[in-house]
Amino acid sequence: MSLSIESVNKNFGGWTKHYSHHSETLNCDMRFAIYLPPQTAKGQKVPVVYFLSGLTCTDENFMQKAGAQRVAAELGVAIVACDTSPRGTDVADADTYDLGKGAGFYVNAAQAPWNRHYQMYDYVLNELPQLIEAMFPVTDQRSIFGHSMGGHGALVLALHNPERYKSVSAFSPISNPTNCPWGQKAFAAYLGEDRKTWAEYDASLLMRKALGAVPALVDQGDADDFLEEQLKPQTLEAAAKESGYPLTFHQREGYDHSYYFISSFIEEHLRFHADHLHP
Amino acid sequence: MSLSIESVNKNFGGWTKHYSHHSETLNCDMRFAIYLPPQTAKGQKVPVVYFLSGLTCTDENFMQKAGAQRVAAELGVAIVACDTSPRGTDVADADTYDLGKGAGFYVNAAQAPWNRHYQMYDYVLNELPQLIEAMFPVTDQRSIFGHSMGGHGALVLALHNPERYKSVSAFSPISNPTNCPWGQKAFAAYLGEDRKTWAEYDASLLMRKALGAVPALVDQGDADDFLEEQLKPQTLEAAAKESGYPLTFHQREGYDHSYYFISSFIEEHLRFHADHLHP
Repeated sequence: MSLSIESVNKNFGGWTKHYSHHSETLNCDMRFAIYLPPQTAKGQKVPVVYFLSGLTCTDENFMQKAGAQRVAAELGVAIVACDTSPRGTDVADADTYDLGKGAGFYVNAAQAPWNRHYQMYDYVLNELPQLIEAMFPVTDQRSIFGHSMGGHGALVLALHNPERYKSVSAFSPISNPTNCPWGQKAFAAYLGEDRKTWAEYDASLLMRKALGAVPALVDQGDADDFLEEQLKPQTLEAAAKESGYPLTFHQREGYDHSYYFISSFIEEHLRFHADHLHP
Repeated sequence: MSLSIESVNKNFGGWTKHYSHHSETLNCDMRFAIYLPPQTAKGQKVPVVYFLSGLTCTDENFMQKAGAQRVAAELGVAIVACDTSPRGTDVADADTYDLGKGAGFYVNAAQAPWNRHYQMYDYVLNELPQLIEAMFPVTDQRSIFGHSMGGHGALVLALHNPERYKSVSAFSPISNPTNCPWGQKAFAAYLGEDRKTWAEYDASLLMRKALGAVPALVDQGDADDFLEEQLKPQTLEAAAKESGYPLTFHQREGYDHSYYFISSFIEEHLRFHADHLHP
């Protein structure tokens, strides 16, 4: 395991840092960001909340725009934000924003040309936390959250791996990807036509089976342009009701799909995670 | 007066908005951002804090990265962030980041080709607040702050116009522009070789004369790469001591020149302004 540091900025008494490393899982070099709160300077190990970004984002958007570091510094949690796909000149891509680079959908691709690099599910579940826990002053207590495509990723990872995450939350998640254009396009490309595999990556279908019971929080703005066609949080809510899953759902009047929405409620999400990480 | 709305995002119960308008002062179309806190929805008029950005920025950087809206919503103040220079295809420019577009230095240019559009001092002092106070639910109580080149602009505007501003603050300001490479390059181009005019735009020289007495707050990171050569806050501190100017100066250990620094102390700056705007 080796890391190259790309940048360090002091921030709310802690440090926002970007690193690059070679990923064995993704078969390419990757970047990620980590916020280390001030408590780590005093030798304290802190739990980690992983953030998964949405379409077109990199490791930078969340750290620059969400306003999360202020709250993480107060609560004594680290935040890790990874990239949204494998990267590099030999990585397959498509000419649209919603497939290929910047659009890995946090799945393990099963067919060519995608399967050579697009293994984001395994990267986020295994390689990234192993690296983080080996190289930084953190505990093995983890929570996970994300936005849009990353909200889908966070929910699916937590639903399949309840032993790995204390809590999960999402802003405007793609809640039922087997039933919306973004999800169908990505799953057809990455997974092929076998719909059984698709179901393993659909939070609404998984929540209906009450897989695991990682406490979940979802926020959705009602002025979000993608709400009806792509996000479908009502399907997730209905699934939770059917199975009795511990999901708290907030519809937020007038809020859209942007980081202005995320920043408005980031404190509530981080407090939710901290309550489960520091019980 | 007319405004075109470019975007609206609900944010901390209020609204982050971007507008464009034709500026008579700058002889071109301009964009600005305004944050209207939730109090304005209930018919309340609120005071305004103007933010002046640094080199290469537009009306977007501050609203996306500073984390100011959370605090402005709590305090009931509006924030206006304008662009850093005139814009458009017929506006003079230079092939460097520190002169021309994105680098107006908040002065009134006195010589060609710059004087046709580069009148940022008058724009920020007169036209912009007239527009804001005519078109939005705000009072005529104003404060002003900025970063780097914008910290210079905020200090100079407040020092010359104590009747117009209740308070002034700056992050990492260019404190003595007549005595640093950025300032000398810009002033030679915009103002010409008459050093008397230069002195009217130098916060350290003005503060030594104790012009006005608008309460001032300055924050400077000691890990800022531009500290020694370009910013020279010690000159400003010395000037304030000499004249007894009400300047509070904080040196911040380990912080750099980035928005990670600004966001870490934005709350203190906005509370400082609110204390003077809501006495």
